[in-house]
Amino acid sequence: MTPQRTYAIGVDLGATTVKAGIVTKTGSIPDQLSADSLAKRGPAAVIQQIAFTLQELFSRHKPSECLGIGIGTPGIVSAVDGMVQHPPNFADWAQVDVAKEIRRKFKLPVFIENDANCAAVAEARFGTGIEFKDFLFVIWGTGVGGGVILDRKIYRGPHGGGGEIGHVSIDYNGRACNCGNFGCIESYIGQRYLSQRTKEILLATPKESVQSKLEKLTGGDMNKLEPALISQAAEEGDPIAIGVLEEAGELLGYALASILNVLDLRVVVIGGGISAAPAFVYEAITASLRARVLKSHRESVRVVRAKLGNTAGIVGAASLVL
Amino acid sequence: MTPQRTYAIGVDLGATTVKAGIVTKTGSIPDQLSADSLAKRGPAAVIQQIAFTLQELFSRHKPSECLGIGIGTPGIVSAVDGMVQHPPNFADWAQVDVAKEIRRKFKLPVFIENDANCAAVAEARFGTGIEFKDFLFVIWGTGVGGGVILDRKIYRGPHGGGGEIGHVSIDYNGRACNCGNFGCIESYIGQRYLSQRTKEILLATPKESVQSKLEKLTGGDMNKLEPALISQAAEEGDPIAIGVLEEAGELLGYALASILNVLDLRVVVIGGGISAAPAFVYEAITASLRARVLKSHRESVRVVRAKLGNTAGIVGAASLVL
Repeated sequence: MTPQRTYAIGVDLGATTVKAGIVTKTGSIPDQLSADSLAKRGPAAVIQQIAFTLQELFSRHKPSECLGIGIGTPGIVSAVDGMVQHPPNFADWAQVDVAKEIRRKFKLPVFIENDANCAAVAEARFGTGIEFKDFLFVIWGTGVGGGVILDRKIYRGPHGGGGEIGHVSIDYNGRACNCGNFGCIESYIGQRYLSQRTKEILLATPKESVQSKLEKLTGGDMNKLEPALISQAAEEGDPIAIGVLEEAGELLGYALASILNVLDLRVVVIGGGISAAPAFVYEAITASLRARVLKSHRESVRVVRAKLGNTAGIVGAASLVL
Repeated sequence: MTPQRTYAIGVDLGATTVKAGIVTKTGSIPDQLSADSLAKRGPAAVIQQIAFTLQELFSRHKPSECLGIGIGTPGIVSAVDGMVQHPPNFADWAQVDVAKEIRRKFKLPVFIENDANCAAVAEARFGTGIEFKDFLFVIWGTGVGGGVILDRKIYRGPHGGGGEIGHVSIDYNGRACNCGNFGCIESYIGQRYLSQRTKEILLATPKESVQSKLEKLTGGDMNKLEPALISQAAEEGDPIAIGVLEEAGELLGYALASILNVLDLRVVVIGGGISAAPAFVYEAITASLRARVLKSHRESVRVVRAKLGNTAGIVGAASLVL
């Protein structure tokens, strides 16, 4: 009797960690594990590490019941040949056919896709997408990435690099971005910038004039000014934290207006680490987006928080199979 | 015997003129005519005028050989019900089902699409699209519009408003645009702005220091500073005209970088009235686009002139049928 195939495995490959999980057809994750991704040691070590986590899962779940393996990866996945191209912070990596290597080792269908696109697919299938069939997914964290969901499917683009919304410029004379452009939204609201901006404002504020929750939360250590902590301070009413996050939301709204105009979309779903920010940040994004987007879009524009948390990567990768 | 259907009719509806032509399956136009569009007199008059031009064509060509009628119109054509929504400069016009009216009168298949999208489709089918299957089409004229061609088909967007690239902002603190946003590329390089910018520079330049070709070409009448004339002056080496067009090209390149990053496109095809500008304008666009777009796109980025001239509207509209 043919065994029933009941689950897929989703692999979420990051520059520091590789996470893998058993994902059921309803999007739940009954089992998952993680390991260091060994990104600094080159492609062979990374692939070996992915294989190791898969073997571990297969020692606990019947391989004969696995539908296949989906992998989410940083960098662009070529739409032509599936090669993973230049993932940031991965050493000695030009173009590597990760899927082929894993397919060879496990004799199962293997699919691979950009990680932001995977998270977008997860939202489309098991999160906000149940309500909206077309939306722009934004990953707001260390950087700013995105995925365009059209009719519940990901827009990959002709070369596999669609949805790079972090490099939409909001000011052609603006901040220099790592990508070589100026004024990219990522360079204004990415994690590093938010931390630095908060630090600058704190340092410029006379000690006696402010009782910052931020100082208490960091114990005075400016290196601890992570967005999660800035969000926490904002929720506790810290005016500096509120100001920084509101400004970031406003700027994101400007970028979104241009993007929604081009793509004719009305809904923005925000995921990634900073998406946990308080509701007023969503209000700031919505207000500036509404003020700037074309009149025909204005009333129906919505900005909502992603429903899936940090498991979106695993679920989305598995969704490539499911 | 069933007659062979050999041609479609393309209608290019504008705020001042309605043009209609017989279009063969190879994209040639053996016969065409035009009339005032009566946009100021309301929807009924406009539809009557379209019908009049069609009747005129049908008096010269056998209706039994017509495959159908395609109409290109300003404004958004709803992806849901085909209604033409708020075409700019058309009086008393909220939502009108133009296609239905024409279908009723002529008992032929009738298709309708936004005019920029029609021109993009024409390029995809009979112009540059023969070489490129994915590209961004830009109409650079009075305003700045666009159409996104993916796998030789138009991207309409979920609501029929895809490709509104004129309202991509390059500076969130920039020029106020008619649409309510700030820094829209249209407000920097649209026809009116180019004329005004040229006028400003001419007025600010001391008479004795400049022998402007522009002054000779306009006979000193600043109201004649149309882009065609600025292009002509630039070709004749006029430094002011060259400067204005080069700056416009550079700014357009900045907007295109953001758009190409999101859509993962590599090729830009420029049509519309100002696309007739000299080659150095294309060089300026390409240079600024290359400097700003993501590294993965940079080498393969190309900016080319549309192949079809002002017949793109008629051919594109007919292509909806063909």
